[in-house]
Amino acid sequence: MTTVYLAMVCGLIAVVYGIVTSQQVLRQPAGNAKMQDIAAAIQEGAKAYLGRQYTTIAIVGAIVAVILFLTLGLLSTIGFLIGAVLSGVAGYVGMNISVRANVRTAEAARGSLQGGLTTAFRSGAVTGMLVAGLGLLAIAGFFWFLVSVEGRAPNDREIVEALTALAFGASLISIFARLGGGIFTKAADVGADLVGKVEAGIPEDDPRNPAVIADNVGDNVGDCAGMAADLFETYVVTLGVTMISIALLIQADAAELLRLMSLPLAVGGVCIVTSIIGTYMVRLGRNGSIMGALYKGFWTSAILSIPAIYLATQYTLGDMNAVIGGAGFLDAGLGAAPTADATTPADAAVAGVPAASAFTGMDLFWCMLIGLAVTGLIVWITEYYTGTNYRPVKSIAKASETGHGTNVIQGLAISLEATALPTLVIVVAVIAAYKLAGIIGIAFAATSMLALAGMVVALDAYGPVTDNAGGIAEMAGLEDEVRHKTDALDAVGNTTKAVTKGYAIGSAGLAALVLFGAYTTDLQTYFPDLTVDFSLSNPYVIVGLLLGALLPYLFGAFGMTAVGRAAGAVVEEVRGQFRDNPGIMQGTSRPNYGRTVDLVTRAAIKEMIVPSLLPVLSPIVLYFVVTAVDGQASGFAALGAMLLGVIVSGLFVALSMTSGGGAWDNAKKYIEDGNHGGKGSEAHKAAVTGDTVGDPYKDTAGPAVNPMIKITNIVALLLLAALAGGGG
Amino acid sequence: MTTVYLAMVCGLIAVVYGIVTSQQVLRQPAGNAKMQDIAAAIQEGAKAYLGRQYTTIAIVGAIVAVILFLTLGLLSTIGFLIGAVLSGVAGYVGMNISVRANVRTAEAARGSLQGGLTTAFRSGAVTGMLVAGLGLLAIAGFFWFLVSVEGRAPNDREIVEALTALAFGASLISIFARLGGGIFTKAADVGADLVGKVEAGIPEDDPRNPAVIADNVGDNVGDCAGMAADLFETYVVTLGVTMISIALLIQADAAELLRLMSLPLAVGGVCIVTSIIGTYMVRLGRNGSIMGALYKGFWTSAILSIPAIYLATQYTLGDMNAVIGGAGFLDAGLGAAPTADATTPADAAVAGVPAASAFTGMDLFWCMLIGLAVTGLIVWITEYYTGTNYRPVKSIAKASETGHGTNVIQGLAISLEATALPTLVIVVAVIAAYKLAGIIGIAFAATSMLALAGMVVALDAYGPVTDNAGGIAEMAGLEDEVRHKTDALDAVGNTTKAVTKGYAIGSAGLAALVLFGAYTTDLQTYFPDLTVDFSLSNPYVIVGLLLGALLPYLFGAFGMTAVGRAAGAVVEEVRGQFRDNPGIMQGTSRPNYGRTVDLVTRAAIKEMIVPSLLPVLSPIVLYFVVTAVDGQASGFAALGAMLLGVIVSGLFVALSMTSGGGAWDNAKKYIEDGNHGGKGSEAHKAAVTGDTVGDPYKDTAGPAVNPMIKITNIVALLLLAALAGGGG
Repeated sequence: MTTVYLAMVCGLIAVVYGIVTSQQVLRQPAGNAKMQDIAAAIQEGAKAYLGRQYTTIAIVGAIVAVILFLTLGLLSTIGFLIGAVLSGVAGYVGMNISVRANVRTAEAARGSLQGGLTTAFRSGAVTGMLVAGLGLLAIAGFFWFLVSVEGRAPNDREIVEALTALAFGASLISIFARLGGGIFTKAADVGADLVGKVEAGIPEDDPRNPAVIADNVGDNVGDCAGMAADLFETYVVTLGVTMISIALLIQADAAELLRLMSLPLAVGGVCIVTSIIGTYMVRLGRNGSIMGALYKGFWTSAILSIPAIYLATQYTLGDMNAVIGGAGFLDAGLGAAPTADATTPADAAVAGVPAASAFTGMDLFWCMLIGLAVTGLIVWITEYYTGTNYRPVKSIAKASETGHGTNVIQGLAISLEATALPTLVIVVAVIAAYKLAGIIGIAFAATSMLALAGMVVALDAYGPVTDNAGGIAEMAGLEDEVRHKTDALDAVGNTTKAVTKGYAIGSAGLAALVLFGAYTTDLQTYFPDLTVDFSLSNPYVIVGLLLGALLPYLFGAFGMTAVGRAAGAVVEEVRGQFRDNPGIMQGTSRPNYGRTVDLVTRAAIKEMIVPSLLPVLSPIVLYFVVTAVDGQASGFAALGAMLLGVIVSGLFVALSMTSGGGAWDNAKKYIEDGNHGGKGSEAHKAAVTGDTVGDPYKDTAGPAVNPMIKITNIVALLLLAALAGGGG
Repeated sequence: MTTVYLAMVCGLIAVVYGIVTSQQVLRQPAGNAKMQDIAAAIQEGAKAYLGRQYTTIAIVGAIVAVILFLTLGLLSTIGFLIGAVLSGVAGYVGMNISVRANVRTAEAARGSLQGGLTTAFRSGAVTGMLVAGLGLLAIAGFFWFLVSVEGRAPNDREIVEALTALAFGASLISIFARLGGGIFTKAADVGADLVGKVEAGIPEDDPRNPAVIADNVGDNVGDCAGMAADLFETYVVTLGVTMISIALLIQADAAELLRLMSLPLAVGGVCIVTSIIGTYMVRLGRNGSIMGALYKGFWTSAILSIPAIYLATQYTLGDMNAVIGGAGFLDAGLGAAPTADATTPADAAVAGVPAASAFTGMDLFWCMLIGLAVTGLIVWITEYYTGTNYRPVKSIAKASETGHGTNVIQGLAISLEATALPTLVIVVAVIAAYKLAGIIGIAFAATSMLALAGMVVALDAYGPVTDNAGGIAEMAGLEDEVRHKTDALDAVGNTTKAVTKGYAIGSAGLAALVLFGAYTTDLQTYFPDLTVDFSLSNPYVIVGLLLGALLPYLFGAFGMTAVGRAAGAVVEEVRGQFRDNPGIMQGTSRPNYGRTVDLVTRAAIKEMIVPSLLPVLSPIVLYFVVTAVDGQASGFAALGAMLLGVIVSGLFVALSMTSGGGAWDNAKKYIEDGNHGGKGSEAHKAAVTGDTVGDPYKDTAGPAVNPMIKITNIVALLLLAALAGGGG
């Protein structure tokens, strides 16, 4: 239990860091009256939106909580509520600091680039540490309560179900937040661009554009709050599923189980500390490279994490070389068929993988290094595909010379291509971790990836702050030089935003097998007499794979359509304001910013509901339909296959959308830096089209695929528990 | 054997129909000297391209043939060569008639719409019947030779391998032809549009555009010859795999096996006859609807096929109600593990599906009706997503009003959404056919889908002829009225083109499980002592699924990039011609059409090679790498999973690209019909961008996914045979 206390302390440290750093940020000067005026409008809009979003989610959440209470009992309901509420808190607090840091970043950038960077990054770090800290506190605290206060065995079914419900709470909120925020931010962005830049010919963030405040609100509610909820979910699900897998798969005494189940918490804890240390390393070097400054922070955290994880593992497990888990224990998770006396193919295959049947603490440490390596490689690959220095972005910029069409074709080609290297990295990591320590090894690789979440989210959340700062500088009419600095800060933000998304979906790729392992083990526990065939030659497996693979496509279609529709509404609203009040374009009267914010708010809330329910309801419908057609064994086979179908297709959809979108955005910035004719050239116009197309790709549909995958998986686990009669 | 003779007679009827109808087409007047001059330039370019393409393919084919001879022996090599050569012949003959029918269609359209329709459709029907006829002759003739002349048992391993090699020959040619032709046609089309319509402001098909002949050549070598090779491949693979599955899975005496293996041939035969009857029903009704005229032909064939298939089944099998296959015979295909004495999960699951273990002729008839229903539904769904009368195309046209970006966003949303209904149809068909007659039932559903190939290809091949006719009318300066008629004919072609692609990939979705069944059965035959675990909980299965799913993405990236790059080269070539010879734009001197054709030819040949080899080499590399890492059982598991991964992801990539591309194209045509401002409006410009983006989507990357999937599967089957020591 000491380890769990330690983890909780680390979680508290993160929260304290958040409070202290917030105050540092808030102590910064907030600029002149005009700047504060603009910032207040953004704050007000963001708060109003999040208020309405959370109210809507609360209604859905309350219904789900009642269903959970009736089917799975009180503990699971409490877990669900903890996950849901803290996910909301992480997003809300992140938004709150970022709407205050934006104006302070603009003011600081009047002084120096380093000043702007520090303020923006600190604000991002507050969000990052809160995501990791609250996530760790939630799991560690809940686990502590269940084991120490309630006195349950670590692998008690109630604990497994309650942790699953906690993950479900986080996921459910995050899909609404990711999608609602994503629709808001891109509807406002695309709408503002179309009617402002393209039709009225006024620059981005021009105060005459009635959609300009909505656009800046969007950065905060989508790229900050939505992203924070998403990463909170990923953190909680990954650590939670690792603990659940240990509980389900390892046959050991309570003390050993407790040690092993505390290890993900310990790793999460020490990495919060290394992440905090990393945040202090973010400063410009002599070459003035902003990406370099951020990398200093990231690599410091990553490298310090290696010894930290080693020490945490040694401390938690005691002997690094003691063998954990006996031969054959993995059969429980791998062999779907509980035919105890027959040699099933699954058994035979597992027996053929010697390293999978038992492992040591040292093996787990190597698995965690694999997780860190995957994170580093994804950062590198994402920078290659979205950074302005490399072939992909340059090729899109070059293709812009021959028009809108070739820009989009090349962007789509890059988005398809960008899936290859991450997939190879994930595949190699899965094999390596599996050979070291079986499914538990894969789970620990995913855990160490997520352990760095505090730092990764800090890098991401820094982006929208600088984007806002640029908007405020423009609207407040600050010197051009300020805008140049914020633009430079913002360009890097495109890459860091893409990094987080690749990182989240990559960890989902790793966790897929772990979640599937939990599903098969649960199935066996709850339905010991049922023989379910998960072989690829079972047609219901194919059906499940195909329908699972369909979900990200359908979900993507909903997201893209929603943005298109809402952006169209923004265009018409703004055209109406220009028409009814000619003083706006002359600069003599002030546009009605609030009405546009309100319009986008209503549109986003309305559009987020149906697609968010898709992954919640699909697994349930599939199970009942197939069971009605061909019995429960087929129903469970199809459901299990759906879990993998959704990741097999979702991984590619998400990677292609997020990388492609980032590349389009930076191709535009690359041209704006004076290449291929620079701003105002035909190539630039084509690049603006590509950027517009990439917007919903990278900020709405693509990133929401990650929570969607998790929800599908977790709903399946909860469905199993509910069908089995629920927790007593 | 009588049934096989009957099938060969039907194949010959198709060839005779082709010859007779060709002569009808060629007897039509070929227009004035200017028209003939233009047509001759197109003919010359198309022949030159196909000549070079086939030369290049012949080199690859010769290398593969040598490898096959050394590993699998003479019969397989002969099978490979038959498939390869006839695939080439189908494409070549189709191109040959279509480059002659184009000018005759233009001339006939000067008389009446019906005249143009008849000439264009007859030309398409020649291609269609040759594809089906040659396909049927190839399989039936080769099967007859092996059984009657060589005196082998119908399920002799050599027959299985030789039929597989025949399918491989067809697939290998078709991927090169589809991709090479697809790159040619879209590089020329996109290049011509960019530099002509967008830069120089001259209309499509303006004779001053040096890329205009290349664009028209592209219709013939890509949309006609490439498509014909693709559908020939699909036909041969589907019928062949159905026969192979029967040979592998059914334990019966030689006479019963022979009857059952002849059934796909008989069905193919009678449907050629119903397709030929259907072609005579294509004529305009009172409402003048062109789509209606084509549908009359299609529905006549489809409805006549129902009694025809019933009679063919009854004639071939004798008693429709006799039970075929004993209980448990399917285990051979389904239970991957040959543990004869143990109850494996697969066995248990199969036993749980009562209808799967034995079936009657009547069951097979129902399965074939399912196949016909799938075809009909895919036609209907495709028309919904790509026709100008429905929401999807209208929504893209509407989105064009707010600019290039929203047009592309809405198009992408539609392309994602368009995958849903076809997937549901396929899923329901898989379950229904499986419940009726197991894997063999699914195979027969796919067979009856492909039996209508003659008619479906006829509808498709009609499109490029009308497209060309429009080009010739424009270049030859014929009356505007002629162009209006050819435009009307061409608009329908966009939908029929999309139909064929959805149909081909849909049949691949059905056939996936059959191919996987053949793989597992082969595995068991060749490596009886090896236990391979195809369960989803085997990490190598996940690895195979992920890498298989990656292939269509990577392949799509190559295809899109190739078109972008080649189109860019066309733009520069044309700009150069305009610059060096100002007389071109003044209409005083003739552009150098041949140089552009030559440039596109070289680019397409060069760009097609690497992506075409991707599906050939990937399964081999995956097998050897995984085997090296973790033994042969894991290697085979990963390889098997790759086969399903490629279809699970390829189905969606192909459906989204082909439907989305068709919708973009018709959204442009919808605007050109006078909606949303009509030609020349801002909405029209945006729609042109969408059309350009859709071009490589629908005509290069998307359709080539279908042969790619087949090749991956067939290479895996051949690899198994080669590893086992080959036929001897």
